[in-house]
Amino acid sequence: MQINMSHGSGGKASAELMKDIFGKYFSNEVLNKMEDAAVLELHGKFAYSTDSFVVTPVVFKGGDIGKLSVCGTVNDLLMMGADPAYLTAGFILEEGLELSLLEEIVASMAKTAKEAGVKIVAGDTKVVEGKGGLFINTSGIGIIPEGRTIGAANCTEGDLVLVSGTLGDHHACILSARMGIENQIASDCACLKSMVQLLLENNIRVKTMRDVTRGGLGTILNEIADASNCSIEIKEESIPVRPEVRSFCDILGLDPVYMGNEGKMIAVVAQEDGEKALALMRETEYGGEAAVIAQVVSGKGVYMKTRLGGSRIVDVLYGEGLPRIC
Amino acid sequence: MQINMSHGSGGKASAELMKDIFGKYFSNEVLNKMEDAAVLELHGKFAYSTDSFVVTPVVFKGGDIGKLSVCGTVNDLLMMGADPAYLTAGFILEEGLELSLLEEIVASMAKTAKEAGVKIVAGDTKVVEGKGGLFINTSGIGIIPEGRTIGAANCTEGDLVLVSGTLGDHHACILSARMGIENQIASDCACLKSMVQLLLENNIRVKTMRDVTRGGLGTILNEIADASNCSIEIKEESIPVRPEVRSFCDILGLDPVYMGNEGKMIAVVAQEDGEKALALMRETEYGGEAAVIAQVVSGKGVYMKTRLGGSRIVDVLYGEGLPRIC
Repeated sequence: MQINMSHGSGGKASAELMKDIFGKYFSNEVLNKMEDAAVLELHGKFAYSTDSFVVTPVVFKGGDIGKLSVCGTVNDLLMMGADPAYLTAGFILEEGLELSLLEEIVASMAKTAKEAGVKIVAGDTKVVEGKGGLFINTSGIGIIPEGRTIGAANCTEGDLVLVSGTLGDHHACILSARMGIENQIASDCACLKSMVQLLLENNIRVKTMRDVTRGGLGTILNEIADASNCSIEIKEESIPVRPEVRSFCDILGLDPVYMGNEGKMIAVVAQEDGEKALALMRETEYGGEAAVIAQVVSGKGVYMKTRLGGSRIVDVLYGEGLPRIC
Repeated sequence: MQINMSHGSGGKASAELMKDIFGKYFSNEVLNKMEDAAVLELHGKFAYSTDSFVVTPVVFKGGDIGKLSVCGTVNDLLMMGADPAYLTAGFILEEGLELSLLEEIVASMAKTAKEAGVKIVAGDTKVVEGKGGLFINTSGIGIIPEGRTIGAANCTEGDLVLVSGTLGDHHACILSARMGIENQIASDCACLKSMVQLLLENNIRVKTMRDVTRGGLGTILNEIADASNCSIEIKEESIPVRPEVRSFCDILGLDPVYMGNEGKMIAVVAQEDGEKALALMRETEYGGEAAVIAQVVSGKGVYMKTRLGGSRIVDVLYGEGLPRIC
């Protein structure tokens, strides 16, 4: 069975798709009311974000577009110090999409949402012409506990920059799949909730956090340096990269500093908290290879201290990166 | 200038697109922080919804995909009795999209958002292969005042069903454009905020509200009858349809009862409030042709009392409707 235009009609076929696939996996007391909008309640500060996912292939080593669409938005909320609570899911399905593939992706979303402790409370489905693929948009709401202020403008001289693990895995995985290269590289697609919670619960003075997605480490550190009106100095040798990803990059002339990841974050923390923060990150499921990779210094821009003792400017990503990576 | 893959990279070209187009029209103090998520505050009940928009052509008589993407989500929030406050916007742009067209659409979104009193507080942009089109997802949050309970399950025998104006306009407009038929039919695409507010401020006992989009009146009334465990009896002659839309439907064999609209709603109100509600609707900009079209009765299902005195079952929409209507 495949998706056809009638599944986007708003009529009988849409209702069946809702019941047989979305309802089956996303069922909860809010969504099940099937109103025009979910009715919820909250008191205080919250984070609110959205992301669309267009990755191809839609299933890849280490994940799929469904898992990615939950992790991506959940991680964005976490980066603001919020506890992710609710998601919406908007599906744009291409005609010819196999229902069994859609079901696999929806099941993966539901599993990831459960792990992340979020409820999918509203959704929408449209059908367009195409080649049997799909796009997913998620938006999310996360509760921000009182007194928590995390933001790109908070960094000051001396702060240390930690990265939660190896760079380039997701990018190298998608590119390998796209090029038909057989290797062991898997996407790092993951929800960073337990890592962020552990840092914050242990009173690490976290100035800012960012997940290292499109644009890569180089672009993100430039945004932070800009917002905080400071400079950041990276130690090249401290950047963790898996050997197989390193080889892959060497062959294709890619730089892990500009590669997209889907389960990696950087945290900028007060200098005195650096060691403790690193130890906490390394305790977590996805933080085993965390490292201190840079320091905030006075000045402007981002610099790399190279292995050979030189220094080079690290600018934001120019050019096109890898299309449809997330 | 056209959109190319680099605009979706997360690097320099993405940043320029953000600044030159999205920043120019959507600028506000929340969005301008450019964090991973917007930070907001609210206390109490709220409505939360999402919708993706894939309409083609992207600009049509009476509106465009940008206006539609704001009205659609704002109307969904209004239907739950909420006052729309915040929107997110996720763009999926096809390579080859003219930047001037994107700017026109973004400007239209900004204008509509301003009229509706909502702020666009977070966004995302992806680029995919294609033919120069675009998809827009919006999600939205609206505040629900204390004591307000509106829902599809609240209707009881005797309640009257009002429709806010003529049916089929949007559907007929899009279909005309798609078929290259020259006529005067314009989309009814509109934000229903002032209409909803007027009803609620004047203490009309509104049991449920729904905007009459994909699936049409027939499908929506069936959903309400189901949820409220009652029957709804429509008077065929009372359904308002513009003469030019009626002619268009007659030629093509379309039934306005299953056609999509983008600025029409139904309100189910207590019987004694029917007359007052109708007068209020007619006072508003988009309610001049409002009418009482149906009544809630005991039983199950939706029926149409025809012009000839007969009665026929009105089921939900079967088949495919019009693809890519919204």
